[in-house]
Amino acid sequence: MKTVVNDTFWNRYKELVRTRMIPYQWRVLNDDIDIKIEKERNDASIPSEKSHAIENFKIAAGRSKGEHYGWVFQDSDVYKWLEAAAYTLKNHPDKELMKITDEVVDLIGDAQEKSGYLNTYFTIMEPDHKYKRLGESHELYCAGHFIEAAVAYHEATAAYRGGVGHMETTTAGDVETGHKEVGNSRALEIAVKLADHIDASFGPEEGKIHGMDGHEEIEIGLMKLYHLTGEKRYMKLAEYFLLQRGQDPDFFRRQFREDTGKEAIGGLYHVPLTYFQIHAPLMEQDTAEGHAVRLVYMCTALADVAASTGNEELAAVCRRIWRNIVDKRMYITGGIGSTVNGESFTLDYDLPNDTMYCETCASIGLIFFARQMLRIEPKGEYADVMERALYNTALAGMALDGRHFFYVNPLEVVPEKSKKDPTKSHVKIVRPDWLGCACCPPNLARLIASVEDYIYSEAGRDILVNLFIKSTMVREYEDGEVTVSIDADYPKSGKTAVRIENKTSGAVRVGVRIPGWAKKVSRKVVVGDDTGKAIQTAAGKERLAAAEDGFWYVEAGAGVTVIELEFDMTPQRWYANPLVSEDTGKVSIARGPQVFCAEGVDNGENLHLLSIPSDADLECSWNEELLGGVNVIEAEGVREIDDEAFKTSYAEAGRETRKEGEEAACGQGGLYRKKKAESWEPVKIRMIPYYAWANRGPNEMRVWLREKE
Amino acid sequence: MKTVVNDTFWNRYKELVRTRMIPYQWRVLNDDIDIKIEKERNDASIPSEKSHAIENFKIAAGRSKGEHYGWVFQDSDVYKWLEAAAYTLKNHPDKELMKITDEVVDLIGDAQEKSGYLNTYFTIMEPDHKYKRLGESHELYCAGHFIEAAVAYHEATAAYRGGVGHMETTTAGDVETGHKEVGNSRALEIAVKLADHIDASFGPEEGKIHGMDGHEEIEIGLMKLYHLTGEKRYMKLAEYFLLQRGQDPDFFRRQFREDTGKEAIGGLYHVPLTYFQIHAPLMEQDTAEGHAVRLVYMCTALADVAASTGNEELAAVCRRIWRNIVDKRMYITGGIGSTVNGESFTLDYDLPNDTMYCETCASIGLIFFARQMLRIEPKGEYADVMERALYNTALAGMALDGRHFFYVNPLEVVPEKSKKDPTKSHVKIVRPDWLGCACCPPNLARLIASVEDYIYSEAGRDILVNLFIKSTMVREYEDGEVTVSIDADYPKSGKTAVRIENKTSGAVRVGVRIPGWAKKVSRKVVVGDDTGKAIQTAAGKERLAAAEDGFWYVEAGAGVTVIELEFDMTPQRWYANPLVSEDTGKVSIARGPQVFCAEGVDNGENLHLLSIPSDADLECSWNEELLGGVNVIEAEGVREIDDEAFKTSYAEAGRETRKEGEEAACGQGGLYRKKKAESWEPVKIRMIPYYAWANRGPNEMRVWLREKE
Repeated sequence: MKTVVNDTFWNRYKELVRTRMIPYQWRVLNDDIDIKIEKERNDASIPSEKSHAIENFKIAAGRSKGEHYGWVFQDSDVYKWLEAAAYTLKNHPDKELMKITDEVVDLIGDAQEKSGYLNTYFTIMEPDHKYKRLGESHELYCAGHFIEAAVAYHEATAAYRGGVGHMETTTAGDVETGHKEVGNSRALEIAVKLADHIDASFGPEEGKIHGMDGHEEIEIGLMKLYHLTGEKRYMKLAEYFLLQRGQDPDFFRRQFREDTGKEAIGGLYHVPLTYFQIHAPLMEQDTAEGHAVRLVYMCTALADVAASTGNEELAAVCRRIWRNIVDKRMYITGGIGSTVNGESFTLDYDLPNDTMYCETCASIGLIFFARQMLRIEPKGEYADVMERALYNTALAGMALDGRHFFYVNPLEVVPEKSKKDPTKSHVKIVRPDWLGCACCPPNLARLIASVEDYIYSEAGRDILVNLFIKSTMVREYEDGEVTVSIDADYPKSGKTAVRIENKTSGAVRVGVRIPGWAKKVSRKVVVGDDTGKAIQTAAGKERLAAAEDGFWYVEAGAGVTVIELEFDMTPQRWYANPLVSEDTGKVSIARGPQVFCAEGVDNGENLHLLSIPSDADLECSWNEELLGGVNVIEAEGVREIDDEAFKTSYAEAGRETRKEGEEAACGQGGLYRKKKAESWEPVKIRMIPYYAWANRGPNEMRVWLREKE
Repeated sequence: MKTVVNDTFWNRYKELVRTRMIPYQWRVLNDDIDIKIEKERNDASIPSEKSHAIENFKIAAGRSKGEHYGWVFQDSDVYKWLEAAAYTLKNHPDKELMKITDEVVDLIGDAQEKSGYLNTYFTIMEPDHKYKRLGESHELYCAGHFIEAAVAYHEATAAYRGGVGHMETTTAGDVETGHKEVGNSRALEIAVKLADHIDASFGPEEGKIHGMDGHEEIEIGLMKLYHLTGEKRYMKLAEYFLLQRGQDPDFFRRQFREDTGKEAIGGLYHVPLTYFQIHAPLMEQDTAEGHAVRLVYMCTALADVAASTGNEELAAVCRRIWRNIVDKRMYITGGIGSTVNGESFTLDYDLPNDTMYCETCASIGLIFFARQMLRIEPKGEYADVMERALYNTALAGMALDGRHFFYVNPLEVVPEKSKKDPTKSHVKIVRPDWLGCACCPPNLARLIASVEDYIYSEAGRDILVNLFIKSTMVREYEDGEVTVSIDADYPKSGKTAVRIENKTSGAVRVGVRIPGWAKKVSRKVVVGDDTGKAIQTAAGKERLAAAEDGFWYVEAGAGVTVIELEFDMTPQRWYANPLVSEDTGKVSIARGPQVFCAEGVDNGENLHLLSIPSDADLECSWNEELLGGVNVIEAEGVREIDDEAFKTSYAEAGRETRKEGEEAACGQGGLYRKKKAESWEPVKIRMIPYYAWANRGPNEMRVWLREKE
């Protein structure tokens, strides 16, 4: 499948990534820009003076002198940047950028050791301790990110280099599947050499290390390398790493004790086993535990292996963990990770709105996981969750200027609380320039730059339409190609047309997702000839297969078939399961896939005093000027006001001088009272899409608003 | 004033302290008991293997060999234990206990260095670093606790030793005020020698250290030593330490950098200046900031100095900080400290019920502060807050068995959240045997053992009745004594009689507090002759001065005057200021001074599903069998139940297979829905006093319950 996006909403983001974020991050990685790097939470050990990421490679490559600076996983910033750059190069040939990226690949190659080992921290700082503290070392995590970047770069540059690559110089073995074209061969050579070094070092065989990385990621990289090269060893190794989790729970701590005992990342020795998903053998895990990004990366790779092998037992584990996340541990914004401590999942229905983590990377990982689940089985809910995470938490991770980023994505923010309550110090009120742990911004860049890969899926011979992004996809079958185009102005409009041009000899089934949020959907099917001219209109049933698992399938015969759909985009009220104690008595407003929120700049301070009556109209209007163009939802609501009588404390009001029989209204200052302050004033409550919040300076924000009966 | 308590409610606690807690803690301090010491929060650095506190003294005294173990302030556990023991000895002569306490005093004396310096950690571990890292060292903090203990022990043992002390061997100077009898003279000798060593080491004079301790406490000890000995140097030094706060904000960090740079308490170098109350000169502080215990200890000493000197400027600072706490930063239970991070205050109206700290010690310190404020000015609200903190958070710090203790006193607990959400790991679900930082249990012991000191106050010639604890107090005037007795069965009953027997030549004014919580109060005054026989009954006005500042005063002439009062103890609903977002839509039930709570053991799981209708009767009944005898409040309430239709996730219910026009009830699994689950079932909601919670195994608890209109 090859997909090209040409969508109003997404082109803006893709251009932001290409023209602003990639050049911006390049300067950050080179310490060539004057910015304030913030710590993502209150932790003195977070390195935040500079990035130093490119300099680390120069030192490891022998081109420069000095010490490594930054996290042990600082290399991955460069890799994710390279991967994002690769995706943009795919659609926008850019010689200047490619000159830089080719040089980066060369630099990485020079930093790689002869053995194939690649990690600047250990090469520079602790060359005798490679693979000896895997719980914290992130060596394989970084390797995974490099491999992902190399595969992307290889594929991206293939199109306009076209030359024969150097596969024969690698040990990648027989090429069974995947792309035959070869682009920048050096990136792939480095990746293969690195993967082979890892394969030679880890595994069940005697003499190899029987362990895996503390942070899942290498498995994703190995699967991508397998898909590109067809080399089954890489998939086997990915599966080994996955199944090794929980087999030897003391592995990380034992390695640590037997090695230096010195922590490169403070506190990791003492974290619970769940943090690493090693509390139980992977096959026995059925809840989402520990560090949220790690968990979804693990599941992404596991689902990929399950889909690639058809292994039903692995698929069953994926389904169990998916169910647990989606039914019990996910925010309405598609955020995951209920606590900053360990950036982790906690327990079922525990979804605090103001102390949570909801890391941008975790929602990105959830999107990766959903995409792989769609490869296992075509269920609309996977795409529902993908869409929810994409249009809400993932996009909220970046400011509209493409140069400021959130790590943590709260559902409720009061700026003074973030400043003065250390329990909420990780909840930033505006997006920082850059972050001490800079995992999120480049992760988001690579997602946006490759968003085309999430729109369509293959399900056997079927084609699935998951997202309504204006685009054209071509799939080649043995007997011809099928082109599917989506015409949409989504999520601004609910009107969508899916055009299928079938040049194969038979019919092709196309499943169009009916979003879980959709209230009313109208549709019609138009069948045309191969010029696209409509020759028949069918109201539906005779040409439509039954809806299955959230998709409506159409059998598209030769020529052109157009499915016209209209989703009702009227704003809707959403309620949480009563077991979510934090959302009791509250309502969340959404329009289509977008969750809305109220900001202080539109609604004044103390948003918790606002209530939306349960029967208030939710009026929606497009505002072209606001926040780059957004829908705004307004409702006639009320604001609780404090009665004058209660406003002063009892000392100020002299209420402690009571006469006999007189009752003080405030038993204790103005803080606790015997009577409720039951006054309300009418107010217009104004809401904007969640992804666009915090683009107008520091102010309050709330997703869940009180509902008044 | 000398007061003897003989009260049903308090005798039980005092006996628990005397017969269980003091012997129990003695064994803990000697590591002579098999208990589980828990960390008060998830922090690997907390020493929790043993107490070692007595052993530390033996090592410092040269009687034993080894290293110091435990916190740098481990000594204070012994001092607070000694102080509590002293108070019990006052009322219960106990030769066996006094043999032990005398030996402890000797041991402490032997551990004191010749210079007067006393601190086992620095004597054993870092003898060259005394007073060089005051931000973390707790040297003066420990000294303050020893001085408090020594004063208490001196006073307690005076009564039945009677002998002449050794004041002449000390440098205490002129004895101007206070007790002339001398008890165990060695305790006081050690204290004076220690205080003089501190006085010689600190102060504005050249050559002295211009600084103070990171944790306020020495100031309280010095003021007590001043009250006992009349030596003004001690008060002057206390005032110096107080006013030094914020004068040189870099002092602690500079000392640290110039000394070893090695932290004995991890992380203290990086805490904000507010933590130590050094963010601004003390005279300019007007909000309660930083570590809650430190803040209230600071205010206790400041109010003591203000009351003892009549310094209005100091009193004004006390009043400002008091107002800020009581009007904006105090829980309805009298708990303070809204966050575990830094065990600190946060900001106005920020009172989360499930992540707060509310340390037992902080409420005890608030009681100390209130008592000193009553010395500055007779305002009922000081006693209101004292009572609120005493009957709720302070008492909740100890289990009914006197052997298990809370450090953190939440207003909302879900056991699974404490177990699985690290953000709530400090919120224990049952009281541990003992705590790694064992400040709270002995602090509570000394408070309970000396509760008589809080019942009455002197306000010039007036006598104030602050608390309704059955007791007798004798105050000596130049021309005779006045005896005030309280007859009460409080808080079980609202009936109270205050009997004043005036043997002086004139009238004495007695102010009886009218509690801020009281709805209706009925009263009558009976005047008797000196046999106590009633000769006249006045319905009030002619004998009662006007109510002033929360007290009703009576002019008690010669002979006996009895004021009979009855407070309406009908359960009441309390509401929080609307600015407290966490309590929106919620109600708290109280009876008299006692806040009530609902526990899972009485009400089932998921207490957040319960609502009390705003018009439901609150029925109260005494249950002699339950929890050592408590009032139980019951109300006909409702429990939200989840409609069957919503219970299963959408995958389980197969809802993703939708037909055209059919709307999914659950857009996303069972977690988020388009319709509210609006089903309720009637339930009897049962509440018990807050202080008695968590005495029936692990279960949920809530103070603030939802209110249904």
